[in-house]
Amino acid sequence: MLLDKHIGLYTDLYELTMAQGYFLTGKINNEAVFDYFFRSSPFCGSYVVFAGLEDLFDYLENFRFDNDDLEYLKSLNFKEDFLKFLKNLRFTGTIYSVKEGEIVFPYEPILRIHGNLIETQLLETIVLNTLNFQSLIATKASRLKIASKGKPVIDFGLRRAQGLGGIAATRAAAIGGADMTSNVLGAMLYEIPPSGTMAHSWIQSFDDEIKAFREFAKIYGEKTILLIDTYDTIKSGLFNAIKVAKEMELEGKRILGIRLDSGDLVELSRHCRKILDENGLNYIKIVVSNMLDEFIIDEALSQGAPIDIFGVGTKLSAGKDDAALDGVYKLISIDGKPKIKISNNPEKVLLPDIKNIVRFKDNDKFKEDKIVLEKLLQTDKGEILLNKMFEKGKRIFPKKSISDIKKYSNERLLMLPEPIKRIKKPIKYNVKVCNTLLKLKNQIIADYFKEAI
Amino acid sequence: MLLDKHIGLYTDLYELTMAQGYFLTGKINNEAVFDYFFRSSPFCGSYVVFAGLEDLFDYLENFRFDNDDLEYLKSLNFKEDFLKFLKNLRFTGTIYSVKEGEIVFPYEPILRIHGNLIETQLLETIVLNTLNFQSLIATKASRLKIASKGKPVIDFGLRRAQGLGGIAATRAAAIGGADMTSNVLGAMLYEIPPSGTMAHSWIQSFDDEIKAFREFAKIYGEKTILLIDTYDTIKSGLFNAIKVAKEMELEGKRILGIRLDSGDLVELSRHCRKILDENGLNYIKIVVSNMLDEFIIDEALSQGAPIDIFGVGTKLSAGKDDAALDGVYKLISIDGKPKIKISNNPEKVLLPDIKNIVRFKDNDKFKEDKIVLEKLLQTDKGEILLNKMFEKGKRIFPKKSISDIKKYSNERLLMLPEPIKRIKKPIKYNVKVCNTLLKLKNQIIADYFKEAI
Repeated sequence: MLLDKHIGLYTDLYELTMAQGYFLTGKINNEAVFDYFFRSSPFCGSYVVFAGLEDLFDYLENFRFDNDDLEYLKSLNFKEDFLKFLKNLRFTGTIYSVKEGEIVFPYEPILRIHGNLIETQLLETIVLNTLNFQSLIATKASRLKIASKGKPVIDFGLRRAQGLGGIAATRAAAIGGADMTSNVLGAMLYEIPPSGTMAHSWIQSFDDEIKAFREFAKIYGEKTILLIDTYDTIKSGLFNAIKVAKEMELEGKRILGIRLDSGDLVELSRHCRKILDENGLNYIKIVVSNMLDEFIIDEALSQGAPIDIFGVGTKLSAGKDDAALDGVYKLISIDGKPKIKISNNPEKVLLPDIKNIVRFKDNDKFKEDKIVLEKLLQTDKGEILLNKMFEKGKRIFPKKSISDIKKYSNERLLMLPEPIKRIKKPIKYNVKVCNTLLKLKNQIIADYFKEAI
Repeated sequence: MLLDKHIGLYTDLYELTMAQGYFLTGKINNEAVFDYFFRSSPFCGSYVVFAGLEDLFDYLENFRFDNDDLEYLKSLNFKEDFLKFLKNLRFTGTIYSVKEGEIVFPYEPILRIHGNLIETQLLETIVLNTLNFQSLIATKASRLKIASKGKPVIDFGLRRAQGLGGIAATRAAAIGGADMTSNVLGAMLYEIPPSGTMAHSWIQSFDDEIKAFREFAKIYGEKTILLIDTYDTIKSGLFNAIKVAKEMELEGKRILGIRLDSGDLVELSRHCRKILDENGLNYIKIVVSNMLDEFIIDEALSQGAPIDIFGVGTKLSAGKDDAALDGVYKLISIDGKPKIKISNNPEKVLLPDIKNIVRFKDNDKFKEDKIVLEKLLQTDKGEILLNKMFEKGKRIFPKKSISDIKKYSNERLLMLPEPIKRIKKPIKYNVKVCNTLLKLKNQIIADYFKEAI
């Protein structure tokens, strides 16, 4: 865990203000249930790859306020009794969730937290901060991998990532489909294969390009990928790369590839492939980078660009163009009583009470989902997506590795019909809400207005 | 510092690959100079607020490889001799930089690092990750503050921030102009005033809205800001808020405000202001949130919306819509010899050699900047922007507080003429390049092509 102290303060002030309010109004033992869900899929897509769950569980198992945290809260005028209460506070609740890596859709209750009102309220910000971001990036990576038609995608994003967010971006990118990462710390922490080539500075540090290529190839042999656009891609870079590849052949070695980082990637990759092939170097791979995204990759491949590997930086690690998933965390039940929020924006009206998602399949492909009341769950016949994963403040299953989560996510994405997951103008997946739940929602709204106004 | 271990691994793999390459090709003592600069201003604007410098200095003063980092690198087949070298490696170089909070422009060499080639190469990713992100967010915050015409802007962004990036987002937002933050950990670490109201869950947790408002006001008195859109903003929320405000007046207390989080903020704020004033509650402030950005704030205020405080979340902390600043770190000199990169994209051609920025003023307003060769600096008469800040691996000035950096940045922004900093369709600031530098650049390119091809 990158953040192993101050976990209790990793929150918005109002969570603490409200928590103290609950404490002072005698709501210490109220049992609350909160749902996590989002309202729209990013990138003009129709689905989200759910990610961040194991990181969230790490935070929750270690949730606490340290002495310096409490000192700080004291300086903000929080009351002594409440601070004493926080000192011993741990998260002791229960979590039902879809699996990490699951394919999910707008308005589905993806994760549900049961616990006392104070604990569950305090978790809001950390839940949203962790799940919104990682789900955004995992979704982006899955789209890149769909666009690349299975060709390797490397996460090159750390330098343009949002500060330390870059570490979790690498984790989420791997879950969604990135095959490797340039981010060494992310690779170590999450056991993801690291990858890298060379920068222009390597070439600039030598008197000429051929020497720079030659020295690199001598050291890294069959791992060598030569960056060929420092001076002139075709006249200088490609020419020198071929020369060095031939020299390496004399020693019985084959370099791995060349990298293009500027110019028109379709034209340049075609030209390079042709010249490489004419020189008997059809084994040399063409790696491309430079502000790629799923649309550029899709367009390049549909024009027949002979690119073998895609390095994606900024647009992956920062989740461009959306940059955020609009996930929210809402109170749906308190002491067994369903709760609602109405709002002047119709799309902000909540689905109350404890719910689950049932997924129906047709020939091993996802057909539709249904949001049902948990207590009516038995009568349905599809796959139940939310299961208990965390109880009395602890995981009930061992922590999953990134490669297992990635494998699961990929299997599930394969079951999503093509028109729903395509990059451009996908159709919507069908998510129904069970009638009893709709009736309950309308009844609560009607009751509220009858009583209140 | 949030990250106080693994600092050496907070990098892209190719930095380490190249560093080992320099080590093995005898380039241990080569003296290199790298420039940090960006190529375009985000948000369709014309300037950037430079931020992240003190955080970067913290990283550099603590730069090292721990034993577990070296173990990991060993598993990636880095060589024993190189790992021994890394074990003792610290950053011992010198940094010239503009001040944190400075207003800067595309292609200006904002920060320059001198040191041996291996050290300076290894820093590339951490420099870019830290400065790109914080400069992006500080710029966004300054735009929000311009749009709000000086009215308070509160950073509400942690829940939609990019994971732990949210902590640095809060720091950068404060530098750029955010007056307060909801982020408690960010507030503690960087001494920024924390702020918060209440969520819908507070109201939902009581049987009715009036009770929820009343209990909150009892506890928080004159700090109370009531969220009025849980059920119906006008018919229920505003009505109950007025009732509670009147009850508080009987106790000699005034609540602080109401918050609108949905619906049309212009119409709703007008209506609320009118009703509040009719009830003699002209002291109650109107706080607005819900996917605000500088354009929405500007439009609302130009329509005369009587809003007093703006809470900005997603679009501030994630730096929407750009989500990343395109800053780069490029080798410009090695062992005293100017270096260049040419590229097939003309905008990617470097300005070689050691440079500084001179800023000329007219009546205390910025008039134009000139990028000049460092060795010709004495002949100019403006303000020299790059100064030595870090020497032999240590800061040479005490670490600056956020409030000092913020104050400096604000003073500088006031000196930027209005047409350059306006939100919509700003004009470009004039940045010239001195003739000697242009000649040097053209000469190096000509020499390269003469020799190489």
